[in-house]
Amino acid sequence: MTSAHDVVAAYWAAAEARDWDAFGALCADDVVYRGPQTREQVRGREAYIRFNADGFAYEWHLTVERIVAEGRHAASWTEFTTAEGALTGLCFFDLDEDGLISRITDFWPEPYELPASRVHLVERY
Amino acid sequence: MTSAHDVVAAYWAAAEARDWDAFGALCADDVVYRGPQTREQVRGREAYIRFNADGFAYEWHLTVERIVAEGRHAASWTEFTTAEGALTGLCFFDLDEDGLISRITDFWPEPYELPASRVHLVERY
Repeated sequence: MTSAHDVVAAYWAAAEARDWDAFGALCADDVVYRGPQTREQVRGREAYIRFNADGFAYEWHLTVERIVAEGRHAASWTEFTTAEGALTGLCFFDLDEDGLISRITDFWPEPYELPASRVHLVERY
Repeated sequence: MTSAHDVVAAYWAAAEARDWDAFGALCADDVVYRGPQTREQVRGREAYIRFNADGFAYEWHLTVERIVAEGRHAASWTEFTTAEGALTGLCFFDLDEDGLISRITDFWPEPYELPASRVHLVERY
């Protein structure tokens, strides 16, 4: 069986290539996607392909910053570039016993102002 | 050598216990913390302990949702509760050859409005 690390690497390569057949083939029939920040959810491979193919129908490219995998779990840190700028994407993955992605939890942290309470404790980079 | 998974589990247990000696002992002398959303950085074990002990001097508690580790890399997903509500923390860790944490990259994704462009592609939970 392919390692969870390789499955997630293939998932991001397929997404960048807009190869939705390859992308879908890495996901379980009953894959569940969740975005906790909006509390949005997508269930099932077909719906999840539509979500990715149609929900972000603008120019974007991604690079993988980090993939970490352990057993049937993995996490990824990706950087997306769009016409409007850069975005960081952080995902946690669960794989099923067939090595298919069964759950994706997806986070998009955004820039914010440094709180005054810790200005004296940090430097900027 | 302790696994990266166990080191990160001990790191979060020490943080929750405010056991800054145990916390610092898991970090390299020259540990570097980065918060990309504010572009804040802290360098060195002593400065990093001060940052954690003094920079968040309000009541908070954390639970570990997920730790994933592979070789000298790890990722964690934690949930923090404070008087003002819940916060999700996502960290990526690098360990040095002695098994000490040498780099922490820390993200805090916040709730946002579901974009209209994908309302028809998702359900809410």
